[in-house]
Amino acid sequence: MLRAAVLGATGYLGGELLRVLSQHPSLDVVLATSGRQAGATLGSVYPGLSRFSELVLSADADRADADVAFLALPATESMAVVPSLLERGIRVVDLGPDYRLKDPAEFRRVYGKPHADPGHLAEAVYGLPELGRDAIRSARLVANPGCYPTATLLAVAPLWRAGLVEGPIVVDAKSGTSGAGASPTPTSHHPEAAGTVWPYGTPEHRHLPEMRQALASAAAPAPPIVFVPHLVPLVRGILCSIYVRSTGPFDPLAFASVYARSYADSPFVRVGGVPRLPWAAGTNRCFLSVVSVGGAPVIFSALDNLGKGGATQAIQNANLLLGLEETLGLTQPGFAV
Amino acid sequence: MLRAAVLGATGYLGGELLRVLSQHPSLDVVLATSGRQAGATLGSVYPGLSRFSELVLSADADRADADVAFLALPATESMAVVPSLLERGIRVVDLGPDYRLKDPAEFRRVYGKPHADPGHLAEAVYGLPELGRDAIRSARLVANPGCYPTATLLAVAPLWRAGLVEGPIVVDAKSGTSGAGASPTPTSHHPEAAGTVWPYGTPEHRHLPEMRQALASAAAPAPPIVFVPHLVPLVRGILCSIYVRSTGPFDPLAFASVYARSYADSPFVRVGGVPRLPWAAGTNRCFLSVVSVGGAPVIFSALDNLGKGGATQAIQNANLLLGLEETLGLTQPGFAV
Amino acid sequence: MLRAAVLGATGYLGGELLRVLSQHPSLDVVLATSGRQAGATLGSVYPGLSRFSELVLSADADRADADVAFLALPATESMAVVPSLLERGIRVVDLGPDYRLKDPAEFRRVYGKPHADPGHLAEAVYGLPELGRDAIRSARLVANPGCYPTATLLAVAPLWRAGLVEGPIVVDAKSGTSGAGASPTPTSHHPEAAGTVWPYGTPEHRHLPEMRQALASAAAPAPPIVFVPHLVPLVRGILCSIYVRSTGPFDPLAFASVYARSYADSPFVRVGGVPRLPWAAGTNRCFLSVVSVGGAPVIFSALDNLGKGGATQAIQNANLLLGLEETLGLTQPGFAV
Amino acid sequence: MLRAAVLGATGYLGGELLRVLSQHPSLDVVLATSGRQAGATLGSVYPGLSRFSELVLSADADRADADVAFLALPATESMAVVPSLLERGIRVVDLGPDYRLKDPAEFRRVYGKPHADPGHLAEAVYGLPELGRDAIRSARLVANPGCYPTATLLAVAPLWRAGLVEGPIVVDAKSGTSGAGASPTPTSHHPEAAGTVWPYGTPEHRHLPEMRQALASAAAPAPPIVFVPHLVPLVRGILCSIYVRSTGPFDPLAFASVYARSYADSPFVRVGGVPRLPWAAGTNRCFLSVVSVGGAPVIFSALDNLGKGGATQAIQNANLLLGLEETLGLTQPGFAV
Repeated sequence: MLRAAVLGATGYLGGELLRVLSQHPSLDVVLATSGRQAGATLGSVYPGLSRFSELVLSADADRADADVAFLALPATESMAVVPSLLERGIRVVDLGPDYRLKDPAEFRRVYGKPHADPGHLAEAVYGLPELGRDAIRSARLVANPGCYPTATLLAVAPLWRAGLVEGPIVVDAKSGTSGAGASPTPTSHHPEAAGTVWPYGTPEHRHLPEMRQALASAAAPAPPIVFVPHLVPLVRGILCSIYVRSTGPFDPLAFASVYARSYADSPFVRVGGVPRLPWAAGTNRCFLSVVSVGGAPVIFSALDNLGKGGATQAIQNANLLLGLEETLGLTQPGFAV
Repeated sequence: MLRAAVLGATGYLGGELLRVLSQHPSLDVVLATSGRQAGATLGSVYPGLSRFSELVLSADADRADADVAFLALPATESMAVVPSLLERGIRVVDLGPDYRLKDPAEFRRVYGKPHADPGHLAEAVYGLPELGRDAIRSARLVANPGCYPTATLLAVAPLWRAGLVEGPIVVDAKSGTSGAGASPTPTSHHPEAAGTVWPYGTPEHRHLPEMRQALASAAAPAPPIVFVPHLVPLVRGILCSIYVRSTGPFDPLAFASVYARSYADSPFVRVGGVPRLPWAAGTNRCFLSVVSVGGAPVIFSALDNLGKGGATQAIQNANLLLGLEETLGLTQPGFAV
Repeated sequence: MLRAAVLGATGYLGGELLRVLSQHPSLDVVLATSGRQAGATLGSVYPGLSRFSELVLSADADRADADVAFLALPATESMAVVPSLLERGIRVVDLGPDYRLKDPAEFRRVYGKPHADPGHLAEAVYGLPELGRDAIRSARLVANPGCYPTATLLAVAPLWRAGLVEGPIVVDAKSGTSGAGASPTPTSHHPEAAGTVWPYGTPEHRHLPEMRQALASAAAPAPPIVFVPHLVPLVRGILCSIYVRSTGPFDPLAFASVYARSYADSPFVRVGGVPRLPWAAGTNRCFLSVVSVGGAPVIFSALDNLGKGGATQAIQNANLLLGLEETLGLTQPGFAV
Repeated sequence: MLRAAVLGATGYLGGELLRVLSQHPSLDVVLATSGRQAGATLGSVYPGLSRFSELVLSADADRADADVAFLALPATESMAVVPSLLERGIRVVDLGPDYRLKDPAEFRRVYGKPHADPGHLAEAVYGLPELGRDAIRSARLVANPGCYPTATLLAVAPLWRAGLVEGPIVVDAKSGTSGAGASPTPTSHHPEAAGTVWPYGTPEHRHLPEMRQALASAAAPAPPIVFVPHLVPLVRGILCSIYVRSTGPFDPLAFASVYARSYADSPFVRVGGVPRLPWAAGTNRCFLSVVSVGGAPVIFSALDNLGKGGATQAIQNANLLLGLEETLGLTQPGFAV
């Protein structure tokens, strides 16, 4: 049994990590931290949990002795603890944004602070296994992608790399409210959120630079992306409706064929008909669908923002890091309804 | 045109007061106050409003010169401003709880503070017009009932007074989340509230003493009431399912006949089939229905917590206070869906 | 008092017509028809209604004697009754699609039937008052626009006519489920609809030709439009997120200035910050907002599909047809929540 | 590997059976039937499923060769197929109501048809393991309880048997809409169901006789139960608020102590604070909580109507029937949100 630590165990991503890890055959949670609820048992915080329910929440990770640490901390907090974790030989999967943007200046522009750990930033590997799992296998530090970039990149990157699409790419995302985190805010107050669809993140959502970075390459910059996230009255799930331009005459079969090739060895990505969000709930799956709307290509990408968009992808990355089978502990099916 | 002031104009009850008053033919809003948003126009706070949109929110009511003041303030704040308003000759409809409980000791027990204005407390009239509108017509100060007591008392009081039912009375209430107010809390955080039915208010909800007081009389104490409110994933509306015991063999027609007699002159109370909450949305109506479940009487009572359970009932009280037609400005129909 | 008939009074648009007409000072409903519920009173079908509640539903409109008839019938049913209504001197506002597309061949392509009344089709006026109310004033037959075209055209037409935008225009629409009508279907089954965002209407929604026709002119064809409607778990309301390309450098103020000019005399269109759907609920209002997302223009357009997207717009058209004040009976404000 | 058949695989209970069985280490689904979708693969019907996705749906169970059959059929359909299954040596867990009521006359009264298989009715064992698992272990035919009886009986039966409570017992149940099944109806039409709380099942819900039977014994009849189910705008989950009368002075600790004794060996029943429905989603757990409301006992019981209220309880029964560990394949945790 390998040992895992979960830092930030009482946020929604932390809770989902514990939930899924409780089904993992090769990982044991030996430490869980929480600023606000230190001293409580996991069972009292998460009565739906079975395994780990006797574990007592710690205030910090100073005593962490683990094979891997999952960091589910607010933005700009991970970079303060990663150096010490790595020094102690603990591999890290950071679910926050601190190690996603390779350019420290860009990080500063987006997150409003200078990067405190530029050395490890350079070393960190972007953890979207389906777009490149080899680098993850040998990494010490993985930057787990954001929920919106995961949904968008799985849909767009193979087509963009294959030269089938060009910009501008319009990404109209609809997200459940759990993506906004466990702290009450006016936007996520039930009477406000339950009765509308709320576009936000203008003029630029923090996840956009991450998408651009992932699509750019030595050969070419990323295409222009117009990204507008919307809160919808759901708790879990993201559906991205993605409007691209075909570089040649649009052939849905050509798109499907690129997906088939790209994801032949990626069991968590499924290509088919228009997806429903319950299929993805609590899972590490992303469902893609290509349709023609008046002759133009539209792609739907669906996942659970707490699952493939967060906690389960982090576990997938940890499996790779630790030399385990990539799908270990991640085979639970979604719901029909 | 009579002049109205709305104190606490940026909470949900304040907003609903302004919305409905904007359709009132004889009342003009000349003052609206807000602690947090003083200086803003009503139109910027409520873009859905037409009339009054140029009115600028004041920080307080010191300059209030009005025929009637609606107080939509947090518990224990009204009693600090009522004396000064009455002194200036302004009639008051208090939507908060400060003047509902006649016994200052009971007020202190429930709200944790001594009553600051016991003199006016004695004078205040409980504003449930359908159970006694004469006293309201000649009052200076009306205590507008709570949302749950309104729904419960309209269903229970006539039967109790007629001797048709006895206790214990079980009131299982289901409420939309707007009843909890405009300030974000963990309970009303969308990811928490949208996925469950949440019983709260144990061991005793603050509205219970108000129900007991209204059912008690010189002749007899109130029956025991077991009251459990539940938050349901809706924004507006309360459905109370009320389980009573018939003092004799249960005859639904006898119940209906008591309602018919009691509410013959009360157009806002409607008795019929099982109600749907949209019928009441934005209105001053309460829908009652009596059914037999295995031979036992069950009563459903439905209203809009922001309407008959709050703002529109306050306007009904103001109409009475000011010698206007009781239904003035309150005839808007509910929704089918 | 002018007399109105409502044909198809027991669908959602019919119910909304009756609800709003019950507040209209100059229109009386003298006839309401329903295939399924003929013989019932309106009060029994709509317990939330006050006025008209004694009116008995008729099976058909044969005896219609009215100044105006509102037709809220399924697609392809209006064209069978319009000739007879017009012959009897009754003006018609058709809320269905039968008279929207001017080209009978296009009608046949989209609705799968030849047009049964091509003569009146040529005469019918497209009833979007804010884009041209003069023709409506002198019309006998008005084709009330679809809900999606209303939301889209109010946002796009002024900009397109002013030469500020070019195609392709991406319209990502999010709609409550009441737009799908009152008949249960698998798509609108609560367990299916409540847990997902459901894109539909591919490869071409029936409302697209209507949008194209309205944007085309003698001088130029319409721009390409990629239109994807999505069902979201709400009952009422449409939010369209509209992605356009600016013909020159994008200046939000220039867009706002075109709206200001175009809608100076149109009190139902409001331009401002990002809209919330409750503001529009039950009203005839459309809220527009222009934002810059990474330098690109994005427009949000919000309305109630049963209101400005249907029933209230039909009443606005009837007001114009009958020489009444355009806003008569349509001034009710929306909700804050 | 033991072999299972799922009859009625395309309803919501059938889908949930397949979802959970796909995680079961000792059961393989070898046959799945569907009237409407015979010929389709399970993967095309349930894209969220992994295992079994190649299995093709059969029209009927004639060829069934299995160790256990799960029957998720409409009421009165199971009794037509059970005799043949038992004859072929197949053990049966019937998720429908056909074998729940021991008295054929009562069955006829409630379901409107004479019982077609009274012999096996006498033999059938009521499958609520926590209230008596020994009889299940040796049964050939198990009648899986209804969702409401499961939630109610787990809360009430131990207290009733211990003599702590007396009637009348008021059960106010709030259920998600998936309990109404996969076929669209007006009641479960999203625009109708999403905006209200809908009490139904009056004057007597079909599940009431089942509750009465389970509480009655040789020594005494069941207490009177007033049972009112309500649809709430959720998909999965039941919360029962249960109002009982304490036979002596109410002591919450005495109630908790009865639960602790009764469920010491029942890991799926958890007693604690007020439960949230996501904790139970997709699981076989039932959460109980006892509170004092004004001195009176109120019990909350929460489960997933498709889980412990249906499919997972059926698998628990099958585990017992087949001599497997009771919890096998049923340890997945619920959600925090």
